[in-house]
Amino acid sequence: MEQAPSLRSGPHDEAWYAARASRGVQGLKAYDPGHDLVALRRQSGAAQLVELGSNENPYGPSPAARAAVLDRLHELHRYPDPLGADLKRALARVHGVGEDELLLGNGSHELLMMVAQVFAGPGAEVVYPRYGFAVFGLAAQAAGATARVAEAQPRTDAMPAGHDLQALLGAITPATTLLFLANPNNPTGTWLGADALRAFLARVPEHVIVVIDEAYAELADAPDYRSALALRDVHPNLVVSRTFSKAYGLAGMRVGYFVAPAGLVAVMERIRESFNVNLLALAACEAALGDAGHLAWVRTRNREERTALVGALQARGLRVFPSQTNFVLVEFGDRTAAVERALVERGVILRPMGGYGLADCLRITVGTRDENRRLLAALDEVLA
Amino acid sequence: MEQAPSLRSGPHDEAWYAARASRGVQGLKAYDPGHDLVALRRQSGAAQLVELGSNENPYGPSPAARAAVLDRLHELHRYPDPLGADLKRALARVHGVGEDELLLGNGSHELLMMVAQVFAGPGAEVVYPRYGFAVFGLAAQAAGATARVAEAQPRTDAMPAGHDLQALLGAITPATTLLFLANPNNPTGTWLGADALRAFLARVPEHVIVVIDEAYAELADAPDYRSALALRDVHPNLVVSRTFSKAYGLAGMRVGYFVAPAGLVAVMERIRESFNVNLLALAACEAALGDAGHLAWVRTRNREERTALVGALQARGLRVFPSQTNFVLVEFGDRTAAVERALVERGVILRPMGGYGLADCLRITVGTRDENRRLLAALDEVLA
Repeated sequence: MEQAPSLRSGPHDEAWYAARASRGVQGLKAYDPGHDLVALRRQSGAAQLVELGSNENPYGPSPAARAAVLDRLHELHRYPDPLGADLKRALARVHGVGEDELLLGNGSHELLMMVAQVFAGPGAEVVYPRYGFAVFGLAAQAAGATARVAEAQPRTDAMPAGHDLQALLGAITPATTLLFLANPNNPTGTWLGADALRAFLARVPEHVIVVIDEAYAELADAPDYRSALALRDVHPNLVVSRTFSKAYGLAGMRVGYFVAPAGLVAVMERIRESFNVNLLALAACEAALGDAGHLAWVRTRNREERTALVGALQARGLRVFPSQTNFVLVEFGDRTAAVERALVERGVILRPMGGYGLADCLRITVGTRDENRRLLAALDEVLA
Repeated sequence: MEQAPSLRSGPHDEAWYAARASRGVQGLKAYDPGHDLVALRRQSGAAQLVELGSNENPYGPSPAARAAVLDRLHELHRYPDPLGADLKRALARVHGVGEDELLLGNGSHELLMMVAQVFAGPGAEVVYPRYGFAVFGLAAQAAGATARVAEAQPRTDAMPAGHDLQALLGAITPATTLLFLANPNNPTGTWLGADALRAFLARVPEHVIVVIDEAYAELADAPDYRSALALRDVHPNLVVSRTFSKAYGLAGMRVGYFVAPAGLVAVMERIRESFNVNLLALAACEAALGDAGHLAWVRTRNREERTALVGALQARGLRVFPSQTNFVLVEFGDRTAAVERALVERGVILRPMGGYGLADCLRITVGTRDENRRLLAALDEVLA
């Protein structure tokens, strides 16, 4: 047995391996998931953190989801259903689509990465708006495509740098194969009305696959908001992305899905990892989907608490942008970083927006009444 | 509101979308996960199937894994730890490696796809052996790389078309960036001895990243078997892949991991989806890892049952290839397809090997004593 010198960290650094990576990966920086909550929870000890940085549903999932996990606890050694047949059947019923129009992912994050891997690559261009979900840019770059970021509208009281649909259309070239857009939008909370979205989609050329990320759709209730699902029949290039991480309260389970034309789903199925959705996750989501009452209750609670939180923040002289989600974007100006740090010291975790180019804002998840109260109390201390 | 004609299945078929896909995906066929067990279970009604097609651990995970799931049941609405810090700490202890030398995946399937996406692409060549894990070829093709399949040794009593290390070395060219090899191997069950593996690795040029898939390593106990982990210090191009799906009995939870140089891990982290491992899965695996007694018990049970099953199959005049895993490859000759069908009719599910180019063999998972007894009884009926 030969004895080698200990080279635990290896003779080569990250740069050596990066030089061997595909071009897209060479220039890539990983998604920033925010604060290290595990470490913060440990530091805080007995004191419960107020975790309002990740737009989680503070009410949790339907109790039926937990019961479904318990029901499958004796099957952990079995592979999940690679077809996700039961969950797809339930989703097909809820959305009135065919099971072959559904693609299940390990969170919508996986599907956003996958759609870029399939339909964009070196030479292709991917269009998305500035102040869009960070994964759009990551997905384009990981696939080796060229990102075309459409500039936003100037910030106003009503719109924290809202999508400029004209700019999005203008960014499309013959090389564009994919366009990402979220509605309602993260991290701004804003939304496109039904008319604007319909007019926009009608003007996108058919060679561009349009992915509308509706992660927060179940929480939207503005009279002019409408899911793009209603426009699927008109646009064979339309993909709608949904998730169980927000309104359904199952962020820990990692399930998202695409509703898309059957032919497009079939092509993406070629690279889907057969067992990409966990056994317990499939069961929990199917059960959650069956509990419409819980979903409705979450929507109501979220709307009430959002309204109250927005009012309370405005009463403190802060500019709060309109939201159809379970979070609000709030302008803190020059004080932003200091406010954020001081809140963390008080156990209140928000999401800094520097990575999104909105360094003068913080994104605040709408918590439970108690969490919002604790947030406001800490904020009053910090702003005093 | 415009009324569109119903085009539910869309005006375009799969071919239209495939023509817009990246070249690798255009030629790709999805991984074949075997029989549709959900449908078969439903058909079989009250009669319990004997499921020996997927190399699952019939004893299930450590009870501590189930307890860990229960402990986290109130947190389903929280995102998992994006760093997987607790599980990595436990793995680092078990393997004596740094936490920065570990990469967690949604099953090793995800990591195998990812390593190809990062280090192989159009123009690159990926080498792997014929009769290797099907995902090797899928990963190469999805990344757009060229697959170089090294031919196997001719079949003998001792080796069902075993790896030809000379052929693998011969398949390497200056364009080769990645080489996949499993040890022990799936679907053959066979293994490379420590000396052969060491000599092989010493001859692979450093510009080729070598991924040794050790999905079944915890079940191997041949005196000449040795994990490639012991060779990591010598080879900065060596990646070892492990999984919780086999010996740990957690296939439903989807967790695999790479042990690799820190610099390589850092590059792959750039495209890892932050929350790729489920909240409950992280907890279950950490707990399972802490129960060395259960693992040892599974190893012993598997070895005893494998020995008994091999003997019983040989007593029936069947050629059974040597195995260091929880499955055996068995030659049925011209009768293979008929035997397989007849067993399915009797509720016994094995894995047909046509997709692996071993159409005259079936792969049989070593079950519990009762499952193996039921398999043998059904086989006696079928072969009679």
